[in-house]
Amino acid sequence: MTPKKGKSTGCTKIVFLGGLGEIGRNMTIFEHEGKILVVDVGLMFPTEEMLGVDLVLPDFTYLRQRQDQVVGVLLTHGHEDHIGGLAYLLKEMDLPPIYSARLTLGILSSKLEEHRVLDKADLREVAAPGTLSLGPFDLRFFNMVHSIPDCLGTHITTPAGTIFYTSDYKLDPYPIGNRPTDLDGIGEVAAHGIDLLIGDSTNADHPGHTPSERTVGEPLHEVIRAAHGRVIVACFASNIHRVQQVLTAAEEEGRVVAFLGRSMLNNMRVAQELGYVKVPEWMVVPIDQVGQYPEDKVVIVSTGSQGEPLSALSLMAAREHRWIQLHKGDTVVLSATPIPGNESAVRRVIDGLFRIGAKVVAPPLAKVHVSGHAAAEDLKHMLELIGPNWFVPVHGEYHHLALHAELAHQVGIPENHVIVMEDGNVLEMTDGVVRRSEEHVEAGFVFVDGLGIGDVGHEVLRDRRVLADEGVVVCVVTIDSYNGELLAGPDVISRGFVFGDESSEFLEEAKNQVRQALSNLAEDEISDYSAVRRKVRKSLGSFVWKRTGRRPIILPIVMEV
Amino acid sequence: MTPKKGKSTGCTKIVFLGGLGEIGRNMTIFEHEGKILVVDVGLMFPTEEMLGVDLVLPDFTYLRQRQDQVVGVLLTHGHEDHIGGLAYLLKEMDLPPIYSARLTLGILSSKLEEHRVLDKADLREVAAPGTLSLGPFDLRFFNMVHSIPDCLGTHITTPAGTIFYTSDYKLDPYPIGNRPTDLDGIGEVAAHGIDLLIGDSTNADHPGHTPSERTVGEPLHEVIRAAHGRVIVACFASNIHRVQQVLTAAEEEGRVVAFLGRSMLNNMRVAQELGYVKVPEWMVVPIDQVGQYPEDKVVIVSTGSQGEPLSALSLMAAREHRWIQLHKGDTVVLSATPIPGNESAVRRVIDGLFRIGAKVVAPPLAKVHVSGHAAAEDLKHMLELIGPNWFVPVHGEYHHLALHAELAHQVGIPENHVIVMEDGNVLEMTDGVVRRSEEHVEAGFVFVDGLGIGDVGHEVLRDRRVLADEGVVVCVVTIDSYNGELLAGPDVISRGFVFGDESSEFLEEAKNQVRQALSNLAEDEISDYSAVRRKVRKSLGSFVWKRTGRRPIILPIVMEV
Repeated sequence: MTPKKGKSTGCTKIVFLGGLGEIGRNMTIFEHEGKILVVDVGLMFPTEEMLGVDLVLPDFTYLRQRQDQVVGVLLTHGHEDHIGGLAYLLKEMDLPPIYSARLTLGILSSKLEEHRVLDKADLREVAAPGTLSLGPFDLRFFNMVHSIPDCLGTHITTPAGTIFYTSDYKLDPYPIGNRPTDLDGIGEVAAHGIDLLIGDSTNADHPGHTPSERTVGEPLHEVIRAAHGRVIVACFASNIHRVQQVLTAAEEEGRVVAFLGRSMLNNMRVAQELGYVKVPEWMVVPIDQVGQYPEDKVVIVSTGSQGEPLSALSLMAAREHRWIQLHKGDTVVLSATPIPGNESAVRRVIDGLFRIGAKVVAPPLAKVHVSGHAAAEDLKHMLELIGPNWFVPVHGEYHHLALHAELAHQVGIPENHVIVMEDGNVLEMTDGVVRRSEEHVEAGFVFVDGLGIGDVGHEVLRDRRVLADEGVVVCVVTIDSYNGELLAGPDVISRGFVFGDESSEFLEEAKNQVRQALSNLAEDEISDYSAVRRKVRKSLGSFVWKRTGRRPIILPIVMEV
Repeated sequence: MTPKKGKSTGCTKIVFLGGLGEIGRNMTIFEHEGKILVVDVGLMFPTEEMLGVDLVLPDFTYLRQRQDQVVGVLLTHGHEDHIGGLAYLLKEMDLPPIYSARLTLGILSSKLEEHRVLDKADLREVAAPGTLSLGPFDLRFFNMVHSIPDCLGTHITTPAGTIFYTSDYKLDPYPIGNRPTDLDGIGEVAAHGIDLLIGDSTNADHPGHTPSERTVGEPLHEVIRAAHGRVIVACFASNIHRVQQVLTAAEEEGRVVAFLGRSMLNNMRVAQELGYVKVPEWMVVPIDQVGQYPEDKVVIVSTGSQGEPLSALSLMAAREHRWIQLHKGDTVVLSATPIPGNESAVRRVIDGLFRIGAKVVAPPLAKVHVSGHAAAEDLKHMLELIGPNWFVPVHGEYHHLALHAELAHQVGIPENHVIVMEDGNVLEMTDGVVRRSEEHVEAGFVFVDGLGIGDVGHEVLRDRRVLADEGVVVCVVTIDSYNGELLAGPDVISRGFVFGDESSEFLEEAKNQVRQALSNLAEDEISDYSAVRRKVRKSLGSFVWKRTGRRPIILPIVMEV
């Protein structure tokens, strides 16, 4: 326990707004006596049950109510699950300075520009190693290796104690770029005692150690060396060091390189401008000019490694890409593994590539990808190095957090000092002592769908699920408001239920059922439209169920004339 | 080339009805001069884009048109993707004798009984090693190791040549049950030359060798030995040898065993009756009586290893199971890996188990599962052993087939003798020479949804996709058939689009848009209801798009009074 200035005072609240129980949407709030530090504002990509949803944001309610208490925003690195929500946050509130390392700010700027909120953002560069004071928070930054450069691990000292927030990281003693995870620096602050460790759990279910990024260099080079035609390498656009390794191999093989995909072009522009990739000028050519080079002198670095439907790689696999028509003789390298949830999409892309006759090089058969997250033994190493008094695993589905907690027990942190939190949970640290608060903060999923933010809720998703599985049947009747006589209809139409010719006879029968149900309305039901609607829904629903074994959404509409 | 009787005559057609380009739904037809042998009639579980579909069958059209030409049906083993379609086939046509090994027939019988078609099936037992003559087809059976006992590899001799159909298999020299894949027997027939090999490609993307089933025995035993509470092992109900290993371990630890889940109970009953599992009588207790034993004396063997929503394990993970309430101290073993497509469902189950506080033991951290399919090096071994003149990879998505084809090239089969087929493709074998036919046979997906078979087609699925992503907006107007005057409405209701309070104002505006669009109908449009519908759809659609950025299905309904 190392309070900021002499005696420990007050209570630091830590509010977990996302990323604990799901992958992505990382956002944590540190609050001390009415001053707030926001660490990361990420977004999450929808899971398959979030039908029709484009993106998922953290719930900003807690912050919305405390806008003027924010003293700073810290972004630990440039991945969407750590910065992707910021544009949306900026749209609805003014923020004090936003701090991050150079590359992160570069990537962020172009995103904020797309959202037209760049001018609302006061971006300020910090670096590791380095320090920053924000109100009651004294921050110290440490370089962490991750699948994007410039990732910050942060030591936070408040008047109530000390915290180490790892953000995403891996251990890689000899990384590309030669800036390893700063274990020496971390060890130094750890020597003074750290009250609370908040650690990345993403790969807690992976045994052993995560291999160095360097290990994929030679396999990638070998693929390019052996290829007789074009080589297309798909990887994350933000994986600058991966791209660097492709560029280095391409250079040695005398191949030009074209970047493909909007985010790849953006990130490479930023990375080149800021000096994060090194590539001779002659080597990079625009995608629409690669046709001018012999095919065995071309490498294309592309987006789409996750099988995203409109990405460059998906379009190529579907023979729908504007510039690049793949053919036998081309080699496609998937230099990535599917993020959980993307497995099927990636398999579809791979199938398409094979159908075209391209040679496909992908994990696990080829060693052309390593993770950016620490595996179990690495996590234990970090737990032991920091030796925190308290530990909270973050970033992951529940089982990742629970497994990370188990690792903490294994290295000797007592069970009651390891706290598995979930979204919306709050921690309190007082005099270096950490405990779970009774408080629960709004931290549900906020869905972005089209232009709407937050207007699609669980009721809409529930309806979409039924519509998706069973379809909808609409039944309209027009009724005389004087005597309840059926003036028009019943008209029955359906979507996603039965189709075309087969359905017409069925729908006729359905109409008869409704007609019959309405023919014996009781006197008091005639003027009660909700009663009529109920009758329609019931008779139609049971007819449909008996005949098809399905339960579509039934929409009875009664028109009054 | 080893024709049946002296000189080679005629042409054998091989029609691939399923399983080439997707996982499951395996069905192959061998046809010689008007006589048909059907090998396997499998089903497939729907992929995520097959919204609301319960099961997927092969298209029986080709067979329907040739019912009286069928001389026999051969089922190679008891997995759903090889036998699950038979009940549906029996419902629509009479079949000649159905041949399979003892366990397969046992499992099949209880399925056919559920479908009430058992009395339509003439089931006949065959065994490996063994032979069978069916019209022009001389069959010879070989034992293949798989994740279910009694799997048949089949050597087929027709007057036009010889074929080896591996069915699903792995190489396991010392399997549980002591019946290895009969490499000696296969080698013997191969010595006479085999024209065409049709081989299982499921794990062609797995490098190396598939480990023996025996390797999971000790890890499973160790989990049971170490557990202080109940142990729940989830695995495939048909993985008899896996269950046997659990039973053996339980016996050594003096624990009783209860089976849980309908298919587990069914298969274990069959397997015990037929002698495929050995378990002392005292050990097996009904699930509702496990409460009478101390928790550290109980093992439960359960279904649900794939995260199926209503399976025993899913219900336990959701704290909704009738008999078993899990708690801290219980150990749950997932003795399986997710089949492609089930990854998310399995992760959800694991998350639920961790939330309960159960200890979860699962691959890859624990070595409690091995595959039932041969990996790349095993496949090469089989290709070399058989040394076929021609090779067709089957069972798998396209990339599995293509990778298996690559392995065949690697062991020396010339590229033009390796034929990658897809569903609906036809091969012709004449005088031992194999070639791809121009013929293409109907082999699309036939969807089972509720009681309907084949009535849900691609149009319905397309609508369901839009409904799922964007919802539906219905707009009803009632119009005077004399003068086109708007008598009632527009009434606008939606589902899966926007919800509740937020939507009412929006829907009011939408109605106004429609009212406005209908106010300036041209003279000739008034009596043209399709024109009115178009106006409604267009005005509403563009309003919705402009305001929400979404494109729900818009259903305009015009009622005439």
